[in-house]
Amino acid sequence: MSVKTIQWTGSAVRIIDQTLLPGRLKYIDCHDVETLWRAIRTLQVRGAPALGVAAAFGVLLGAKKFKGDDPARFASFVLRLCDFIGASRPTAVNLFNALNQMRGLILKNPRLPVAIMKAVIEAEAIAIFEEDKAVCRAMGRHGAALIRNGGTYMTVCNAGALATADYGTALGVFYAAKEAGKKFKVFALETRPLLQGARLTAWELRKNRIDVTLICDNMAATVMKGQKIDGIFTGADRIASNGDAANKIGTYMLAVLAKHHDVPFYVVAPKTTFDLKIRSGGEIPIEERSQDEVTSFGARPTAPKGIKVFNPAFDVTPAGLITGIVTEYGVIRRPNRKRVYQALSFSKKG
Amino acid sequence: MSVKTIQWTGSAVRIIDQTLLPGRLKYIDCHDVETLWRAIRTLQVRGAPALGVAAAFGVLLGAKKFKGDDPARFASFVLRLCDFIGASRPTAVNLFNALNQMRGLILKNPRLPVAIMKAVIEAEAIAIFEEDKAVCRAMGRHGAALIRNGGTYMTVCNAGALATADYGTALGVFYAAKEAGKKFKVFALETRPLLQGARLTAWELRKNRIDVTLICDNMAATVMKGQKIDGIFTGADRIASNGDAANKIGTYMLAVLAKHHDVPFYVVAPKTTFDLKIRSGGEIPIEERSQDEVTSFGARPTAPKGIKVFNPAFDVTPAGLITGIVTEYGVIRRPNRKRVYQALSFSKKG
Repeated sequence: MSVKTIQWTGSAVRIIDQTLLPGRLKYIDCHDVETLWRAIRTLQVRGAPALGVAAAFGVLLGAKKFKGDDPARFASFVLRLCDFIGASRPTAVNLFNALNQMRGLILKNPRLPVAIMKAVIEAEAIAIFEEDKAVCRAMGRHGAALIRNGGTYMTVCNAGALATADYGTALGVFYAAKEAGKKFKVFALETRPLLQGARLTAWELRKNRIDVTLICDNMAATVMKGQKIDGIFTGADRIASNGDAANKIGTYMLAVLAKHHDVPFYVVAPKTTFDLKIRSGGEIPIEERSQDEVTSFGARPTAPKGIKVFNPAFDVTPAGLITGIVTEYGVIRRPNRKRVYQALSFSKKG
Repeated sequence: MSVKTIQWTGSAVRIIDQTLLPGRLKYIDCHDVETLWRAIRTLQVRGAPALGVAAAFGVLLGAKKFKGDDPARFASFVLRLCDFIGASRPTAVNLFNALNQMRGLILKNPRLPVAIMKAVIEAEAIAIFEEDKAVCRAMGRHGAALIRNGGTYMTVCNAGALATADYGTALGVFYAAKEAGKKFKVFALETRPLLQGARLTAWELRKNRIDVTLICDNMAATVMKGQKIDGIFTGADRIASNGDAANKIGTYMLAVLAKHHDVPFYVVAPKTTFDLKIRSGGEIPIEERSQDEVTSFGARPTAPKGIKVFNPAFDVTPAGLITGIVTEYGVIRRPNRKRVYQALSFSKKG
């Protein structure tokens, strides 16, 4: 990958400042936890899997700076560090998962010497990073088999390298297919209101030499009508145990349009995105975001002052509209509760 | 109507400068044809029906300034005036229709005294203006019967007062229903890339005290899933003889989503929007507009430089997805070629 969203340099967390994209590709080295915290808060680094890795590296960064050799004081220092990092973005589930893994290390090993605990934390952070890469590659491999040489595909938001430590989820499928020698085209929806499709997906697909065409979200239907679209690939933020998938607003629209135009619709997400406590999409809470995202652009108003706005950040696509969920263990075709459980329990063994 | 998009003051064409909306409501008096020409060119006045009226008033404005009493010279002056105004926006069919009406007056009456011809032109321009108002009111009346007290509706782009000399087409239905005492809510799609829904529709609905909520185009599906939507009302730019309707990009998307969610889908358009020479939507040419509309906002880039963009300004909704076309003569339900011809031939008699 020519895009390295997040890396550990040995003494700093190196990230791409995504707020400057697509204008400028700039790497930032976060040498202290406060700088990394602000980077997460201000969306310089974003995307659920990337945030998990960022949180783990943040704990490593902070722990390395601890002076002293009292295991109890070190443990309490690291736990406070986890709380601090957890307050950067309260909704990212991967961020909490990574922090909980770190907390678990501390709670399980309260008496190990500080120097050893620092090494354990470093190994765990790097394992989380490597795991994300391996999972991306595995999803990419399974998804690439669904890509037809000469085909045309569609994606929404940014489920790509910029959202993970490596390949991305939905975009990883495209990268893997390209590496396998396939040629194909991708339509990227701009993804209002924050334009992650225009700013990030168009940028990284082009940088990786994939033939990408940018469209507004309201053009997807007419593209599907006007030419053969061979498949739609999206990421997911949370998947219920019955296969209903929450993802960036506009995904459900695409799924309905795909059904009408007989286009296969795939969700690409790792096992960690499944939330088996949740039985169906109706139980997934949908975050409503600030009206300003819709009523202004930068400082410039684009709608009447004080107008009522509905700005849900996500929507839920019912499993019945999903052709398959691509996971690191394979594709769950025509997902339902039984098939989700089968796939995930198989994955425990394999 | 509290919004007066275009008026004749007796010596000037008074328009709302729509490029300043929603920030500022400013009326401009065009005292000469050049000023009006620039207003059309720069979209200070826009909307197919309003452009027809603007063109007619433009001819009146110019003709009034003619000095001399030679009918032949007057005729050639007015014909050149028509050509000049026709070059302001080459795609607006209503603009050409109005100019052709004016040319017809000149060609039919080549020898009438100049003073009389000026009066004839004035009468014709005012007739075009009044006709547009009457047609808006008639469509509003027929459409209002489709609005349920307490209902919730959806619209895209601006098919409102700002696009006509009066009520508008789709929004005229809402205004008429409100005048009939009905209460209801409207979701306005922002309508990328030029945001006519956010800038113009949200503004004029609110100004006329209709309960309006602004959403991004990609949120329409989730709104239809989350709550009962009683109907969708859109305008049209051209309707084929079989009932297929071209309108602003995103309209076809709404029609497909409406079908999936069992929501009635109505097109509101006067007889002049039907183009009986065109047998189906596939024959309607779709204008592709500048990439800049999608890749930047004002001067600020929002996508990678040089990225490929597909930017169709319109799409075509097949008649099969249309519940009814609201015209000034009534509603053509489940439109097809036979019903369109019946409705329009009836209208010739009535």
